[in-house]
Amino acid sequence: MPHMPKILQTLIIEHVEPELDGGRYPIKRIAGENLEITADIFKEGHDTIGAVLRYKARGARDWAETPMHHVDNDRWAGTFLLSENTRYLYSVSAYIRTFETWRIELSKKHGVLADLSSELLEGEAQVKEAMGRAKGPDKSELKLWLEKWQSAPDQEARITIALDPILATLVGLHEQRAAWSSYEKELEVIVDRERARYGAWYEIFPRSEGTVPGIGGTFKDCEKRLPAIRDMGFDVLYLTPIHPIGETNRKGRNNSLKANPGEPGSPWAIGSRHGGHDAVEPALGTLQDFDHFQQAVRKQGMEIALDFAINATPDHPYVTQHPDWFKQRPDGTIKYAENPPKKYEDIYGFDFYSDAWQGIWEEMKRVLLFWIQHGVKIFRVDNPHTKPVVFWEWLIREIQLEHPDVIFLAEAFTRPKMMRVLAKAGYTQSYTYFTWRNSKQEMIEYLTELTQTDMKDFFRPNFFPNTPDILPEVLQQAGRPAFKFRVVLAGTLSPTYGIYNSYELCENRAIPGTEEYQDSEKYEIRHWDWDRPGNIRDYITTLNRIRRDNPALHLFTNLRFYQAENDHILFYGKKSPDGSNIILVVVNMDPYTTHEARLTIPIEEFGIGEHDTYQVHELIQDYRHQVVGREYWIRLNPQEEPAAIFTLRKHVRRENDFDYFL
Amino acid sequence: MPHMPKILQTLIIEHVEPELDGGRYPIKRIAGENLEITADIFKEGHDTIGAVLRYKARGARDWAETPMHHVDNDRWAGTFLLSENTRYLYSVSAYIRTFETWRIELSKKHGVLADLSSELLEGEAQVKEAMGRAKGPDKSELKLWLEKWQSAPDQEARITIALDPILATLVGLHEQRAAWSSYEKELEVIVDRERARYGAWYEIFPRSEGTVPGIGGTFKDCEKRLPAIRDMGFDVLYLTPIHPIGETNRKGRNNSLKANPGEPGSPWAIGSRHGGHDAVEPALGTLQDFDHFQQAVRKQGMEIALDFAINATPDHPYVTQHPDWFKQRPDGTIKYAENPPKKYEDIYGFDFYSDAWQGIWEEMKRVLLFWIQHGVKIFRVDNPHTKPVVFWEWLIREIQLEHPDVIFLAEAFTRPKMMRVLAKAGYTQSYTYFTWRNSKQEMIEYLTELTQTDMKDFFRPNFFPNTPDILPEVLQQAGRPAFKFRVVLAGTLSPTYGIYNSYELCENRAIPGTEEYQDSEKYEIRHWDWDRPGNIRDYITTLNRIRRDNPALHLFTNLRFYQAENDHILFYGKKSPDGSNIILVVVNMDPYTTHEARLTIPIEEFGIGEHDTYQVHELIQDYRHQVVGREYWIRLNPQEEPAAIFTLRKHVRRENDFDYFL
Repeated sequence: MPHMPKILQTLIIEHVEPELDGGRYPIKRIAGENLEITADIFKEGHDTIGAVLRYKARGARDWAETPMHHVDNDRWAGTFLLSENTRYLYSVSAYIRTFETWRIELSKKHGVLADLSSELLEGEAQVKEAMGRAKGPDKSELKLWLEKWQSAPDQEARITIALDPILATLVGLHEQRAAWSSYEKELEVIVDRERARYGAWYEIFPRSEGTVPGIGGTFKDCEKRLPAIRDMGFDVLYLTPIHPIGETNRKGRNNSLKANPGEPGSPWAIGSRHGGHDAVEPALGTLQDFDHFQQAVRKQGMEIALDFAINATPDHPYVTQHPDWFKQRPDGTIKYAENPPKKYEDIYGFDFYSDAWQGIWEEMKRVLLFWIQHGVKIFRVDNPHTKPVVFWEWLIREIQLEHPDVIFLAEAFTRPKMMRVLAKAGYTQSYTYFTWRNSKQEMIEYLTELTQTDMKDFFRPNFFPNTPDILPEVLQQAGRPAFKFRVVLAGTLSPTYGIYNSYELCENRAIPGTEEYQDSEKYEIRHWDWDRPGNIRDYITTLNRIRRDNPALHLFTNLRFYQAENDHILFYGKKSPDGSNIILVVVNMDPYTTHEARLTIPIEEFGIGEHDTYQVHELIQDYRHQVVGREYWIRLNPQEEPAAIFTLRKHVRRENDFDYFL
Repeated sequence: MPHMPKILQTLIIEHVEPELDGGRYPIKRIAGENLEITADIFKEGHDTIGAVLRYKARGARDWAETPMHHVDNDRWAGTFLLSENTRYLYSVSAYIRTFETWRIELSKKHGVLADLSSELLEGEAQVKEAMGRAKGPDKSELKLWLEKWQSAPDQEARITIALDPILATLVGLHEQRAAWSSYEKELEVIVDRERARYGAWYEIFPRSEGTVPGIGGTFKDCEKRLPAIRDMGFDVLYLTPIHPIGETNRKGRNNSLKANPGEPGSPWAIGSRHGGHDAVEPALGTLQDFDHFQQAVRKQGMEIALDFAINATPDHPYVTQHPDWFKQRPDGTIKYAENPPKKYEDIYGFDFYSDAWQGIWEEMKRVLLFWIQHGVKIFRVDNPHTKPVVFWEWLIREIQLEHPDVIFLAEAFTRPKMMRVLAKAGYTQSYTYFTWRNSKQEMIEYLTELTQTDMKDFFRPNFFPNTPDILPEVLQQAGRPAFKFRVVLAGTLSPTYGIYNSYELCENRAIPGTEEYQDSEKYEIRHWDWDRPGNIRDYITTLNRIRRDNPALHLFTNLRFYQAENDHILFYGKKSPDGSNIILVVVNMDPYTTHEARLTIPIEEFGIGEHDTYQVHELIQDYRHQVVGREYWIRLNPQEEPAAIFTLRKHVRRENDFDYFL
């Protein structure tokens, strides 16, 4: 504000919420949701003011507006519907309601001051002005009001007309909005489709879907397994990279430095004489086979997530076509990817600081568009925290402006601020620290951060209890009970969760002292026996069915923790916005020991009176109890059932709820 | 970030603090203070990074910079000295430390990987690059290092040289700062002179300084009273308006609608045939008399604060010269100032929404500059919340860019968000709700908001226990004990406070049911007997001496509340930054009843051990106690002493503190 302004915008509009980092980054929502915007709005003096929330979808020419209302203490609120899967801009404007200001002053003076003739002249002029701006029937109606006013026999009669609320509404619609002032920023909201918030993921190595030992699976083999995956209740089938795998320095079994002949290498080592990021590993089939598979997945009501890993083997076509995309060392070699002293000898990292960085950016965009053409709308991005954040910000925006239905999942397991800024820069979903949060207290703290701080506006978690890189200690050590309660946590705390296959088999053999799987699929072809004894396929199927049936579990920020008088028993719940669906989850976080606890059910949150009878229905084992009051005792033996998922029904049906009663 | 950037700025710099409303408004500090800036700074990957805080005084051509250091969890901090009374800009930049990154990688690989020849070639190239950029002795030194490196007999010897920290420092000084990235905003800090934060104000109606009953005082009379005011220990002498008072609709005694002949009218009714805002009421003297008086005030070590009230009587020259600055009504009259149904018949408000608003702005600036030419550097602004905030933002900046030593006090007693935005828009100091905070809990809550929220960065309170408009109930009802403890609260909670004269006389006659003074000076000439029985001049003199002697009381955000086990006993303290001055204040907030309490002195904050003996010295009554431990009992009889101010001395002197011991 260094110079005298050209136009006088006198209304203060500040503390607009939500607003992320002063508007530097967009917030995120889901199509079909209402977005409520609040702001402090006020001005000097005593004028009556009005405020509107303005918004438009990206690309729309005109702003729409909806009125805001005063809440309390100069705080205003307004809401609009995010009807489309696109990006919207929103902002706030406010103005003086001249006639309403005058009307209120008149009513205050009326009966106190005797002569209001000058005041009435002012009001009459305002009605005239509004009439001049009005059109059609409103103009005629204002004309009638004015005639009535002017022909009124005395001051009292004029005042009665002047204070008529119908006249006020009519003038308010047409008068000039005085001192029109706008918030200085246009804020953005990314409006995703529902799958961005809610879905169950299943991760596979397509080459492990074969049925003949020693021979890798193909897309055709994958297709055969789709009904089984669908029957478990998954929505997204996430494929580890499907591109040609390099031969130079190919890794062998259990990440050994050299592969033996016939070993398939890591699918993240992308690029061979068969092509690079826009090609398919020949052992899996052709691009046409992929297209067919992709359509088969859609037909099963699921969709594919593809891995997007910006690595290149020495055999990748990029290496010869674009040597300037890689870091040349003084001795003429290209620098391998490394995290000193670890070296990844089978891949080169891209040099995002080379002079040719813009070429890399454009090519990565081309690669994504290529797969989008082939029906892929979800990308799980490998190690985004090792590439510049500004690159992702540009790339995701570029893609989503054309294809707003594309979803990006950030596979970053790194420091908290980098996790957050990747989400702010545009990632639709993020991997999380869930995998390492083991105690009740840790879980409450972490989930409170995710759901109750500003992270709720931009960071959407995707909870994986395992990944091909992470077999956490609790699963290694505690086995089946841990596999059960960790998947219940993942699938009920977060509306989006996933498992890496073999989880349902409770596969827990690790390389000692690490979180790496023994005989990891990353480096060899596996064949799994999906009916292996001890598997929890039915359990996961039940969990996914419960998730699907209960809309409260499709949301995240509705999570609330409740009191359980035991340090190992975690108790939380979710409620659908209309209150009709209530889910309560109780988990024994100790996979070794039976624990019991007195739970305090927050009946007042659910509109249940202290003396009302309500029903809790446990959905995993399908039992029911009738309860009165807040208190509920639970005992969880991890060897039997480490977790319970209740739906709470407020009203036990009575005789007069049935037709035959009437 | 819609388009591909031109330059690659990859480092993330965010959550810079302090930053007010996303940089929309400046923060405030005092010349001579250090400003600490913190920020989250990080980037993708594993590079070692560096960061600098950049700053420059307004008008300076070049940015200075000072290094920031990593604190914890990607949080960085840096500090610079605000040496001048001006406005500074500050921002943050960060970059990759290429050679340090390489050195750390080398040291990680050393001993793990056998062949580091390629790595060493990289490092050598970097040393060469730095040498190419260096000049003078550094260049020669780098040349010597390079020769040593190149002539080293084997890899181990080269590694020893490469890892030498002296070489690292030298290369770091001259290498290119890679991926240089800057925070997108330049933030501003208003750096005021010390009087903006610390000072004692004394408010008078100059016309009441006469000595002959019935005859108004002049500037010459005022001059005679200066030694007495100085002796009480005041720093700022605040004069109610000194301009010619209108005659049309002049108000009479006790705000009666019509003045009798000879009644002087309200000094806020500005403008007569003798002139307007740049003139002096003839009854007070001439402009030359004012100048003389102003200099006399300076000679006493005080300075004048002038009232700045944007009102005009019907007799003000503006009314004829600039009729378009006032609101013309349809009947041809000008609209009086009003707050319906109240009317202020002696003044017109300016119409800041007239087409000629820019003329009003410029004229108000001219008026302020006029008084600044006459030595006035402090303005107490009347009712700023009835004029557009953008006007104040422009006006204060315009004035302070030329005259950074000018102080503006906002006399707004209005809704909280307007109070705050006036301070954000530039007001140096603000009146507060202190006057109406009566209970211990209210006081703790309000002061916590002022000192511990973001208000600490922009809102500087000036605590007045009374004003000509406000004689609060507690003073009306409780008399002398209340006058004592309210002034102790004002003068020790806030480093800036003030009283309206007659406070020291415990004048408490109100118009019943209001906060208005009986026979208010606003409407008549008063003559005060400054030696009136029951006065607390000595008490206030003592308070001001204690304030002056104790630097802890010159600060505000160092305020901390401590535990006193009685709901009426307020206990708080302040510590000077170096810890050498510690003040503890205990106040009985109930002026009617004796209360006692066990206090918990937070000795650990003061570096006192549990078994150490320390001294508390009460400064109003001048008594001392020796204390061991946290516990201290106090009993406060409001009829005797409602408050105690202790200084705490950590170390009772021992034999070896004296010369003769040695």
